[in-house]
Amino acid sequence: MNVLIVYAHPEPRSLNGALRSETVSHLRSRGHHVQVSDLYAMNWNAVVSPADSRAPQGGARFDPSLASRDAYEAGLQADDIAAEQEKLRWADVLILQFPLWWFSMPAIMKGWVDRVYAYGFAYGVGEHSDTHWGDRYGEGTLAGKRAMLLVTTGGWASHYAPRGVNGAIDDLLFPIQHGILFYAGFDVVPPFVVYRTGRLGDDGYVRTVAALRARLDTLDVIAPVPFRKQNGGDYAIPALTLREDLAPGEAGLHVHLDRTA
Amino acid sequence: MNVLIVYAHPEPRSLNGALRSETVSHLRSRGHHVQVSDLYAMNWNAVVSPADSRAPQGGARFDPSLASRDAYEAGLQADDIAAEQEKLRWADVLILQFPLWWFSMPAIMKGWVDRVYAYGFAYGVGEHSDTHWGDRYGEGTLAGKRAMLLVTTGGWASHYAPRGVNGAIDDLLFPIQHGILFYAGFDVVPPFVVYRTGRLGDDGYVRTVAALRARLDTLDVIAPVPFRKQNGGDYAIPALTLREDLAPGEAGLHVHLDRTA
Repeated sequence: MNVLIVYAHPEPRSLNGALRSETVSHLRSRGHHVQVSDLYAMNWNAVVSPADSRAPQGGARFDPSLASRDAYEAGLQADDIAAEQEKLRWADVLILQFPLWWFSMPAIMKGWVDRVYAYGFAYGVGEHSDTHWGDRYGEGTLAGKRAMLLVTTGGWASHYAPRGVNGAIDDLLFPIQHGILFYAGFDVVPPFVVYRTGRLGDDGYVRTVAALRARLDTLDVIAPVPFRKQNGGDYAIPALTLREDLAPGEAGLHVHLDRTA
Repeated sequence: MNVLIVYAHPEPRSLNGALRSETVSHLRSRGHHVQVSDLYAMNWNAVVSPADSRAPQGGARFDPSLASRDAYEAGLQADDIAAEQEKLRWADVLILQFPLWWFSMPAIMKGWVDRVYAYGFAYGVGEHSDTHWGDRYGEGTLAGKRAMLLVTTGGWASHYAPRGVNGAIDDLLFPIQHGILFYAGFDVVPPFVVYRTGRLGDDGYVRTVAALRARLDTLDVIAPVPFRKQNGGDYAIPALTLREDLAPGEAGLHVHLDRTA
């Protein structure tokens, strides 16, 4: 497999740096091809701006979405954006690795999404009709590929449990796993989360690496999170609300999982 | 009141730019004091790095959390960080205004949170004991202040409804409203969300501004989202899971709301 790791941590001599190295070396030892986008090392530009397009602007009002579409269609995107898209096309599997900062990804990785996910590439793809609301949520440019989050956090597992004070980890990661990855077509496998990093210790580190290696060995076969496809009949179009007979009377992010799949 | 607006949009001649101007002028017309942190105009640095501290580093391993603590305690934070913290201390109300990009805030605003929310300021505050797990989730440096999100999105309201395909807007915003704002002590009033911005039209804009003004007039009295306080007895400490007799048998982010409040 071709595996792209997009990685965001400022210190190579960190737990994240160590887990990144273990991931790369283990995947390569299994014969996989690996590329790493080390956002801090690349000095990745996190901020959407008119400079994301090489097309002349002429003082026009900057509409990030339309500018993104025009640059993508005309082949005039900034080089760093086009290079990341090319890595995504190359990859069979995408791993986003980051420390959980304020219950989401570090800004530098959010800026990777904001800039690389161009109109025409990651959204605004496919037909809009009475039965098909664009190629998204299970369809799209990146369909057929898999993605996984590799996340570290100082909090305890119980703090992120279904009734933990921080919110359930699956719910906190929903905007990323469903809204960023599944949206663009990825099948999302369950996240690999390392909790209570400050108290991991040597034994904990060894156990974590063993579990990570085992997970990496099943990346291509493990069942993905069963998010419902948007255009598969489960949602009314164009309201895009879940059919009343599915998870009847329920709300909450879990209704977007097809437990029968 | 003193109102701080932290604003993230790259184009002043945008819907967000117009709503920002309306917000500022309306609040001032009511006698309030307003400061705006216009992150794009400030060329805000979104990326956590060792340069966030003016303390000598000496080639030590960079631990973002500990470096933040040390710099905060020693008064050696980067000037831009300290200035934003001072604005937060000054404010009675914080408004975070942004377009919803990939179901969260633009990277430049996430970088405002990542950098301004220092250890000792926004987290790592208060005693840790058998009954009190730090001053957070309803307590902390910013307790007694109010906060509100002002968010625009191209999607329809139904797409963000309780059973909408994007996920319920309250659940998508939970990592921000609960994990960033309530965590640091803010009382969070319901978000002001503008949907389907591409089809707003002149009439829609007029209606939106009228509704926004009405909301601004009630910022100080409207009931906040009733998030449960961490140390108020609803959560077991240190597991920080919700007591079994509260919302018994339920999961989902809504369990962290006290409907009886």
